Amino acid sequence: MSDTQTLESAQTETPEALVARLAKAGRAAQIALARMTTPQKAAALLAAAQALRAAEPAILEANAKDMAAGAARGLSGAMLDRLRLDAGRLAGIADAVAAVAGLPDPVGEVISQDERPNGLVLARVRVPVGLIGIIYESRPNVTADAAALCIGSGNAALLRGGSEAVHSNRAIHAAMVQGLVSAGVPEAAVQLMPTQDRAAVGAMLTAAGLIDMIVPRGGKSLVQRVQDDARVPVLAHLDGICHTYVHSAADPDMALSIAVNAKMRRTGICGSMETLLLDAAFPGSVAVVQALLDKGCELRGDARARALDPRILPASEADWDTEYLDAILSVAVVDGLEAGIDHIARHSSHHTDAIITADAAAAEEFLQRVDSAIVMVNASTQFADGGEFGLGAEIGIATGRLHARGPVALEGLTTYKWQVRGTGQVRP
Amino acid sequence: MSDTQTLESAQTETPEALVARLAKAGRAAQIALARMTTPQKAAALLAAAQALRAAEPAILEANAKDMAAGAARGLSGAMLDRLRLDAGRLAGIADAVAAVAGLPDPVGEVISQDERPNGLVLARVRVPVGLIGIIYESRPNVTADAAALCIGSGNAALLRGGSEAVHSNRAIHAAMVQGLVSAGVPEAAVQLMPTQDRAAVGAMLTAAGLIDMIVPRGGKSLVQRVQDDARVPVLAHLDGICHTYVHSAADPDMALSIAVNAKMRRTGICGSMETLLLDAAFPGSVAVVQALLDKGCELRGDARARALDPRILPASEADWDTEYLDAILSVAVVDGLEAGIDHIARHSSHHTDAIITADAAAAEEFLQRVDSAIVMVNASTQFADGGEFGLGAEIGIATGRLHARGPVALEGLTTYKWQVRGTGQVRP
Repeated sequence: MSDTQTLESAQTETPEALVARLAKAGRAAQIALARMTTPQKAAALLAAAQALRAAEPAILEANAKDMAAGAARGLSGAMLDRLRLDAGRLAGIADAVAAVAGLPDPVGEVISQDERPNGLVLARVRVPVGLIGIIYESRPNVTADAAALCIGSGNAALLRGGSEAVHSNRAIHAAMVQGLVSAGVPEAAVQLMPTQDRAAVGAMLTAAGLIDMIVPRGGKSLVQRVQDDARVPVLAHLDGICHTYVHSAADPDMALSIAVNAKMRRTGICGSMETLLLDAAFPGSVAVVQALLDKGCELRGDARARALDPRILPASEADWDTEYLDAILSVAVVDGLEAGIDHIARHSSHHTDAIITADAAAAEEFLQRVDSAIVMVNASTQFADGGEFGLGAEIGIATGRLHARGPVALEGLTTYKWQVRGTGQVRP
Repeated sequence: MSDTQTLESAQTETPEALVARLAKAGRAAQIALARMTTPQKAAALLAAAQALRAAEPAILEANAKDMAAGAARGLSGAMLDRLRLDAGRLAGIADAVAAVAGLPDPVGEVISQDERPNGLVLARVRVPVGLIGIIYESRPNVTADAAALCIGSGNAALLRGGSEAVHSNRAIHAAMVQGLVSAGVPEAAVQLMPTQDRAAVGAMLTAAGLIDMIVPRGGKSLVQRVQDDARVPVLAHLDGICHTYVHSAADPDMALSIAVNAKMRRTGICGSMETLLLDAAFPGSVAVVQALLDKGCELRGDARARALDPRILPASEADWDTEYLDAILSVAVVDGLEAGIDHIARHSSHHTDAIITADAAAAEEFLQRVDSAIVMVNASTQFADGGEFGLGAEIGIATGRLHARGPVALEGLTTYKWQVRGTGQVRP
């Protein structure tokens, strides 16, 4: 079906009917995809990467249209930068797709196996989740990244990108599908929503039984809307209010270098530190806050933190629950491990929280008791990333409590089934 | 707080405020519970079992009140039987609680471990889900079973039983809590909803962020309501439309004994077979349907199935999607493995589906392609049960695709967190 035909039929059906039609096609494609072997899926991903490289002129031309429209609409410089593709960025996108081909395939992995006294042999085996909906904003690379992770894990993808990137997304999608189809993947394994109608997003969110899981990729307002409205399970994080607690037994140099890195390496990522908890008994606090201030970070502290340096501004109650995503940091002085854990329990968004300490018992206590998707000892919270965790990529970071937590890649896009092998057993 | 005080305060607050108050207390208790060791939790479960045995007079007296009220309200004999406790049944309930104490504790288990090139050591470690809401109907044993499984996996439980069992549930709950508290478990680790107000159920279902997971235990209308209204993740199955496909290469005696067992051993359980698919090339079909008919099973067949025996009634389209939970079975004749798999794909509720065959390749093809929580070869679907799977117990069977599938016991009530141990690493 051509893009034009799809658009026409999309205009004559309700958003719910559109989603149902796409989901049905996606599910049928997924059943075929689930039967493909690991080498077949890898070959398809390499073909998709090659097709992206070959389509460079068309993709950059489409992107130029989006950039022109974005500039005319007055998008901010940061948004235009997120939208922008060039030969180097596109090559990076293609390389990322090819890299997924080299990751271990979780599908078919035997999670556990057991033989019962009656001779039944039970195995839990990983299978794809099914049809994954991805709802994202202006970054066109998500089109390729998300599709590659879904295909690599045997899932079909239904993509819905932001309207500002519509031409870029269509061009990237067309190239990828061409590559995938040339390697035997059904066309509907990766579908791009043919309309920018916002009602279609609502229809995706409520398509329980049709779409198996939704992954939102974008800013807080997008994630919030998806979490509020979805009747389909959502894999996401809303906030990354990450803490670093500097214990009394922390090495002062280590505390300083980790605190500066956790906040200032990149301030706009979800794993950046937003609150620094300094133990009252830690001797190096002045040096840590001075280093942060000298790097240009605004510090907002409680009364005891402000006593460390006159440049520290007063923190309001809201600061302890704020994800700045900027060169701003809240700082509190706490009395001991218990108080540090307690502050984190009250204010963490359960994304990533860290302790800096040379005391192994304190470290283990922190690791055991802090109830976040990622808990760290003596490391920068900026390591909260699928690539850094050795997953090769990530579809996102999840702070929910079920299914998958922390960085989610291929394995998080699978579930399992029980296979039971008998020899005629009946239940007494 | 006495029962009376709880009831009084429940009357002065909204259902939402009640659930928020109970959830807050439960969550605080869960944090303390999560710090208890495996032997401590086991000792607490044994104390709870002992307390149930010691409270036999009070529990049976409470149950007699429920039975009298139920009889006065005209409950059916089957419902009264589900409600009824006697010394033997109560001993069984206490034994089941004690048995959970002997199960392996999943909490703290290291799922995977990896050292990165930069020296960071990553481990995924099982942790409790948190606060589990259990919504159930007339069986008072669920009060004890569900509470035991939650405590055994480090979770707090918020129980809401059926109004017909209110006195029994309160007596069982009071005894268990007394036993648990005597062994150091916080009182709020197992809470029973102090009101039978149906609005309180609605408040539980929408308590996202307060309750981590809801498990409905009961009939289809309860599960349907929970699935429709919940904003909290639900672990459940709605239907058990289980199939047995008898392949052309099936051993005729095995096919007969498995088919009879899968349907007739107990017709009212979710793992009972509801549709029998007979391969057109299987030579033993007449004997299989005769055996089922002779056992008193009503058969409803398609045209080709009806040709096997004149006693087979015609099936309507609805029969292929019906869970009878009775001595009724739909029967279709299919042409080959592909047609069998296709019928199952269209009509299965993805609970449990089985193939009977001596052909190993056909068996593996079926196991790979049938997308149900449990897929079986040469065994009765009635084995779909946590006890039979060696899990020791089950909180339920899940047919959703995420988190846990099939029989769910202690491990399914856990999730994981990432523990990262560093030596001062910062991200470049």
